[in-house]
Amino acid sequence: MDKDMQDVLKKAEVLVEALPYIQKFNRKIIVVKYGGSAMSNEELQKNVITDVTLLKLVGFKPIIVHGGGKAISSWVSKVGKEAQFINGLRVTDAETMEIAEMVLGRVNKQLVTMVQELGVKAIGISGKDSGLLHVKKKLSDGKDIGYVGEVDRVDPKILFDLLDNDYLPIIAPIGLDDNFDTYNINADDAACAVAKAVGANKLAFLTDIDGVYKDINDPSSFISRLTCSEADALIASGNIGGGMLPKLNNCTDAIRKGVNNVHILDGRIPHCILLEIFTKKGVGTMFMADDDALAQNN
Amino acid sequence: MDKDMQDVLKKAEVLVEALPYIQKFNRKIIVVKYGGSAMSNEELQKNVITDVTLLKLVGFKPIIVHGGGKAISSWVSKVGKEAQFINGLRVTDAETMEIAEMVLGRVNKQLVTMVQELGVKAIGISGKDSGLLHVKKKLSDGKDIGYVGEVDRVDPKILFDLLDNDYLPIIAPIGLDDNFDTYNINADDAACAVAKAVGANKLAFLTDIDGVYKDINDPSSFISRLTCSEADALIASGNIGGGMLPKLNNCTDAIRKGVNNVHILDGRIPHCILLEIFTKKGVGTMFMADDDALAQNN
Amino acid sequence: MDKDMQDVLKKAEVLVEALPYIQKFNRKIIVVKYGGSAMSNEELQKNVITDVTLLKLVGFKPIIVHGGGKAISSWVSKVGKEAQFINGLRVTDAETMEIAEMVLGRVNKQLVTMVQELGVKAIGISGKDSGLLHVKKKLSDGKDIGYVGEVDRVDPKILFDLLDNDYLPIIAPIGLDDNFDTYNINADDAACAVAKAVGANKLAFLTDIDGVYKDINDPSSFISRLTCSEADALIASGNIGGGMLPKLNNCTDAIRKGVNNVHILDGRIPHCILLEIFTKKGVGTMFMADDDALAQNN
Amino acid sequence: MDKDMQDVLKKAEVLVEALPYIQKFNRKIIVVKYGGSAMSNEELQKNVITDVTLLKLVGFKPIIVHGGGKAISSWVSKVGKEAQFINGLRVTDAETMEIAEMVLGRVNKQLVTMVQELGVKAIGISGKDSGLLHVKKKLSDGKDIGYVGEVDRVDPKILFDLLDNDYLPIIAPIGLDDNFDTYNINADDAACAVAKAVGANKLAFLTDIDGVYKDINDPSSFISRLTCSEADALIASGNIGGGMLPKLNNCTDAIRKGVNNVHILDGRIPHCILLEIFTKKGVGTMFMADDDALAQNN
Amino acid sequence: MDKDMQDVLKKAEVLVEALPYIQKFNRKIIVVKYGGSAMSNEELQKNVITDVTLLKLVGFKPIIVHGGGKAISSWVSKVGKEAQFINGLRVTDAETMEIAEMVLGRVNKQLVTMVQELGVKAIGISGKDSGLLHVKKKLSDGKDIGYVGEVDRVDPKILFDLLDNDYLPIIAPIGLDDNFDTYNINADDAACAVAKAVGANKLAFLTDIDGVYKDINDPSSFISRLTCSEADALIASGNIGGGMLPKLNNCTDAIRKGVNNVHILDGRIPHCILLEIFTKKGVGTMFMADDDALAQNN
Amino acid sequence: MDKDMQDVLKKAEVLVEALPYIQKFNRKIIVVKYGGSAMSNEELQKNVITDVTLLKLVGFKPIIVHGGGKAISSWVSKVGKEAQFINGLRVTDAETMEIAEMVLGRVNKQLVTMVQELGVKAIGISGKDSGLLHVKKKLSDGKDIGYVGEVDRVDPKILFDLLDNDYLPIIAPIGLDDNFDTYNINADDAACAVAKAVGANKLAFLTDIDGVYKDINDPSSFISRLTCSEADALIASGNIGGGMLPKLNNCTDAIRKGVNNVHILDGRIPHCILLEIFTKKGVGTMFMADDDALAQNN
Repeated sequence: MDKDMQDVLKKAEVLVEALPYIQKFNRKIIVVKYGGSAMSNEELQKNVITDVTLLKLVGFKPIIVHGGGKAISSWVSKVGKEAQFINGLRVTDAETMEIAEMVLGRVNKQLVTMVQELGVKAIGISGKDSGLLHVKKKLSDGKDIGYVGEVDRVDPKILFDLLDNDYLPIIAPIGLDDNFDTYNINADDAACAVAKAVGANKLAFLTDIDGVYKDINDPSSFISRLTCSEADALIASGNIGGGMLPKLNNCTDAIRKGVNNVHILDGRIPHCILLEIFTKKGVGTMFMADDDALAQNN
Repeated sequence: MDKDMQDVLKKAEVLVEALPYIQKFNRKIIVVKYGGSAMSNEELQKNVITDVTLLKLVGFKPIIVHGGGKAISSWVSKVGKEAQFINGLRVTDAETMEIAEMVLGRVNKQLVTMVQELGVKAIGISGKDSGLLHVKKKLSDGKDIGYVGEVDRVDPKILFDLLDNDYLPIIAPIGLDDNFDTYNINADDAACAVAKAVGANKLAFLTDIDGVYKDINDPSSFISRLTCSEADALIASGNIGGGMLPKLNNCTDAIRKGVNNVHILDGRIPHCILLEIFTKKGVGTMFMADDDALAQNN
Repeated sequence: MDKDMQDVLKKAEVLVEALPYIQKFNRKIIVVKYGGSAMSNEELQKNVITDVTLLKLVGFKPIIVHGGGKAISSWVSKVGKEAQFINGLRVTDAETMEIAEMVLGRVNKQLVTMVQELGVKAIGISGKDSGLLHVKKKLSDGKDIGYVGEVDRVDPKILFDLLDNDYLPIIAPIGLDDNFDTYNINADDAACAVAKAVGANKLAFLTDIDGVYKDINDPSSFISRLTCSEADALIASGNIGGGMLPKLNNCTDAIRKGVNNVHILDGRIPHCILLEIFTKKGVGTMFMADDDALAQNN
Repeated sequence: MDKDMQDVLKKAEVLVEALPYIQKFNRKIIVVKYGGSAMSNEELQKNVITDVTLLKLVGFKPIIVHGGGKAISSWVSKVGKEAQFINGLRVTDAETMEIAEMVLGRVNKQLVTMVQELGVKAIGISGKDSGLLHVKKKLSDGKDIGYVGEVDRVDPKILFDLLDNDYLPIIAPIGLDDNFDTYNINADDAACAVAKAVGANKLAFLTDIDGVYKDINDPSSFISRLTCSEADALIASGNIGGGMLPKLNNCTDAIRKGVNNVHILDGRIPHCILLEIFTKKGVGTMFMADDDALAQNN
Repeated sequence: MDKDMQDVLKKAEVLVEALPYIQKFNRKIIVVKYGGSAMSNEELQKNVITDVTLLKLVGFKPIIVHGGGKAISSWVSKVGKEAQFINGLRVTDAETMEIAEMVLGRVNKQLVTMVQELGVKAIGISGKDSGLLHVKKKLSDGKDIGYVGEVDRVDPKILFDLLDNDYLPIIAPIGLDDNFDTYNINADDAACAVAKAVGANKLAFLTDIDGVYKDINDPSSFISRLTCSEADALIASGNIGGGMLPKLNNCTDAIRKGVNNVHILDGRIPHCILLEIFTKKGVGTMFMADDDALAQNN
Repeated sequence: MDKDMQDVLKKAEVLVEALPYIQKFNRKIIVVKYGGSAMSNEELQKNVITDVTLLKLVGFKPIIVHGGGKAISSWVSKVGKEAQFINGLRVTDAETMEIAEMVLGRVNKQLVTMVQELGVKAIGISGKDSGLLHVKKKLSDGKDIGYVGEVDRVDPKILFDLLDNDYLPIIAPIGLDDNFDTYNINADDAACAVAKAVGANKLAFLTDIDGVYKDINDPSSFISRLTCSEADALIASGNIGGGMLPKLNNCTDAIRKGVNNVHILDGRIPHCILLEIFTKKGVGTMFMADDDALAQNN
């Protein structure tokens, strides 16, 4: 093979090597669950929204699912009611549901505004729009705690339509049941249901913790990557605290239903999403299928 | 011409005669402004939503712009504030604006739910989504009355995208100014701005009055059809009451900016929209361009 | 109210009454599982394909999922192998899988041809195309029986794209696992998974039985409509035969995951699909949610 | 079978029988070549445009290809040149080409205006737009007669895009060659090329003759339907006049390249298009493939 | 924070800093008004068209609105008429209108050809197509000067459809009034109306002047950036010449109706558009809202 | 001109110079015919599919048309038949056609799987789907050799729809005739027909030869670029072997019907497609129109 040919062959190889990297950005859907402490101050909000907007500009198709629990509690008390929780679930009578829907609606439009400010087209919807999130009543230990729903079906068509038309969808976690009654949904669960229904490539939970530790009391036991089996073992070990448990279950469930990677990130670290995605080690805990882990080790 | 030929010719003529009627339904955009008393009870709401949904099913492309003034006032007082008005405009401080956005957001989703119940896909947005409604501060006699905006630009792309994908858009009258601050917009004005921007075929105001009277004290002076010039004359006559005046101006302005027909309807009459559109005489007052009136008389 | 007004009001009411009927046809997705005896002769095939094509022309969005078990067995024996089944599942070694994919591919294109002959645009795909059906290996009582897969995730985007562009999708029940190996899928299961993922309004199984009987030995015990609870009770009663059991479970599962109605039809009855949908009593067994049954009785 | 069942079966049959008729209208593309005498007065123009518009409203997807020869000649003489023809082809120097493009451009927009008046969205383009018609120079008996082109390739994407977005495309027969020079194209040829490229269901030539006669001197020898073979025989018979010959060749060529039916119609008969399509016998001559004729006779 | 973390943080910051720049290209609409001296020779034309085409290739969505006054005058005299102007407006009788439409139609297709040569898909339309530009008669000091129209409404749907399908639309400034009569429109006015209706990010006037001077006699008084208020003051100062006045009014009007930036450029400077957009100082005069100027100074 | 201005001018020029290169990737359609020896081992297959996938990721719109002759022969003999050829065409009785369709269907899905593995969305279809390839029976020296078809019409709409929705279409060379009977098509011919119908920018034949030689016995006579006229002369020279002849005719025919470039490549060279497109000299033989060659030499 002559010199000239070797050169062009090398050129071709460079292109071929670039393939996996280009694919990483190529129209993959990433669902970002945004809530809790990461929403608590404006500086953090700007960081998060800037990150998500940037993901969109480099080729990802992001979807935001947001919470708003603190704002709801604050408004509930404003009208003279007391927020009440059973097993971590808000007892939601009709009046509380009305307040929750109003507050989440406003948070939704605040996030829309922030994205629009960055020059990207956003549409804020709730799970009611076009029947996106269908729920059934969720009981707490068999007890009726009001309008608390769990997603039993997602109609993802509206999300594909919005993504195809180049919008960034922002979703408030509210749904309808068979009787067209309104229900509040845990935002983690809603994000998980959405990610599965659209076949998301990634699902990222912005939380107020670093990620997962093997031993919560040993800072050196931080886990950067975790397979489903390893997560199962961790859960079985009994070392996982109560608040972390449902999150872990959501993560493994999402992986098993086809989401490629699930990430637990500390929303208080500036640009945590970019750091996790564009750097090798990342800053949080990434969950993956057992097979994928195997493939990466070989 | 032989008998056979006459028959087929007749057949062709029937088709040709059907043309104007078919056109009436063929993907024409109709903007319905829905608010005030017509929203006050559930029965009326169901009638209105059923009518609009039916328009969609027979081929129209409806858009709803809704109000929510009474619910806003009720929530304002719920948190211990007093609703305040100057020249009919709500004085809107930051806290009132926050409440208004929450309440309108919930009304928006209630309407979405009602349309979904009828088996039609609806998406509820506000003027913030994808920059639909851009406003500047509206003064009242030169006085700053807070976050009250008037639309100074509409970006209709989001509406075309939603209509093209077969959704029924429902719009809350809220917008952003150059600084991305949130403003309340008069729902009549918002509907008018939207109708002009999308080149609507029809704009219908659902109100709690019958329509326009030549002499408000003479029931026999009801006006079924009105040209822009006639409306101008009526305004100049000084016989039009204060509440009616801005509505009349909105109507003639919409006609002059290209909306084909504007209708003032009494939302309390069951199925008033269908009656107005599918019957010759109609039930409300229809505004049209001077030219169109001329054409119909010839 | 004068006479003229009464007339127009009546006219409006007729339109309003037509609403539920129009909705029935309006872009609803119906998944038809087509296989077994109903595929055995050309006359029956023509009936079925004509029915499905007609559904499309009147406004439905049909999707066909087909089987092909008999043709596979016939080709397996043609190359000198013996078809082997364990618990009703075909033992599928690599060679059998190769034959199954070839045979199903051809059946797929035969159905495409029949739809094209009727002037409707069809596209035949398998669950491999655009990652539609993702599977994991299915064990039989814990035993590996080869390339037999169960769907663990559906990426419905391709179906929405094809339906939006007005094609009738026809799906062969084959999928890929994490290692991109090819697996055979039970056609009933594939249809069920597809129906749930696209939020289908209806799922119809074309079989070689009439439907469900309370007592299989008593012809007068035929059941036209069945709620999920009633189906559960029937299963618990132990009166349901082995072949029927997985079908019943598929039906109730689909209903619970959001499909509105599931139908078991006898594909040997000419035009059974049209008869079931356009007549009150229908000809097969229709499953519905407990709530829906309640609503219809009130 | 009981009475009830018979009834529903009958109902199903009615639907099945309606199938071929519904298909007739269902998004089929029809290319209408409009020129010559049929364009000569305003009354005829209105009839033709009304017919085409109606076809669109009942479900067809029409495309108009127009001529403008007389208007070109009139403008050529207006600037003091003499229109010159060799073998029926206009000798087209640079100045004549400039005039031709101007005149055809204006005729194009006149037709657009007429369609718009009827409430249907039209877009007028020429073969230059998005590279629709690519030509090479056409010689007349080996002699260069200037900017006269014959289509050697069609890029139909623009037409599919316009039809998909619900526009009625109107095409002026002008194209570009490899050097991006402008050429005039015979409108019959342009219509034929377009019809083949989009896989049109029908191609209709609006002319100033009734159709085809077996013996041009015998009015009773009018031919309503003609297969390709019969047309070949007719051409071979030598009984076809010079002006008719290229038209016949265009017709048989179009059929052989996949257009289902080609029609020669007398544009001077009011509503000739509707009469031809919606009546059994029709009013002009219809060409079809030999196979199709066979199928209809059996 | 360890070294590794600092690195990745830096990496993230680079991406974040790139955000505003990426946004600049991201599907923003730019309307270019092209006419006058900048159209006078082929070299300049090529420069302009190359610039616009390049804008499209790097992500902008350009729309061209063109004039053609000189060519119209030349053809008017060619047929023995004398071009007549009152207050700078062409007196346009029916015959002049016919010529104007023909000439503009040809200019339109010449521009289409030039864009196509550069490998980009262009579609040339006039304001008649799909009802894009609706006009009413424009009087000159109350005097009827024939078919001279001013835009009173724009239906932008056709432009969104063409842009969504990746075409570069080129618009001839002609419109229809209520009677579907044809009118000539000033190209500056047409460009301005289009830019406002589509919510353009930029509107660029290619002229034969450098831009705006504070004192037309003082070359050192050239103004690179101008707010609306400053432009108002300049107009009020009386130092602006007659030809410049309507242009300035168009600029400030466009800004106030929502166009982000308006540029006056000297079309005779090679690549003036690229220079203005991709360089800090630019080469012409840029208009902006008062708020934006404020924001940039802070 | 001052220094600053010179700098920006230079900047503009760089962008302008980049134009032709950017255009090269910008949504151009490339049809790749893939078959014969290049399909024979897995390593080569991976190279080819990786190349095509990369073309898609950098902006091309590739379409694959594949063969499968060897696999068909192997299955024919597996069922005890003998593959029979006349003049290089497979004698195709009904049973052979059945096998061919099954085998090609499986090859089709294997290629789909390989593209999916690389993270790009693929859809595998045959010429039956949506009526893509319509054929008539092909005779061999006037002799009927069974179900061997030649394409007489292509309906490219399905390909535009798939490309618009961002899929990579993979086509099996099978078509339907007027009677909806199934025919086998030579894959080279099918690729050629498809390339012409979609107005492809490039058509590449992956073969097991280097390309074209002036004298097949003289390795130094390899031809890198060839115009249509030169190819004609070569054919007339009689120096072209029998297997090469139909390929050459396909190449010149495609060029003359509007494909810009046709390439004959040796599929056994790793990354031959990338080498041919992204390097100046290329590795195979490229055909071009006479005009284009002229343009490049000037």
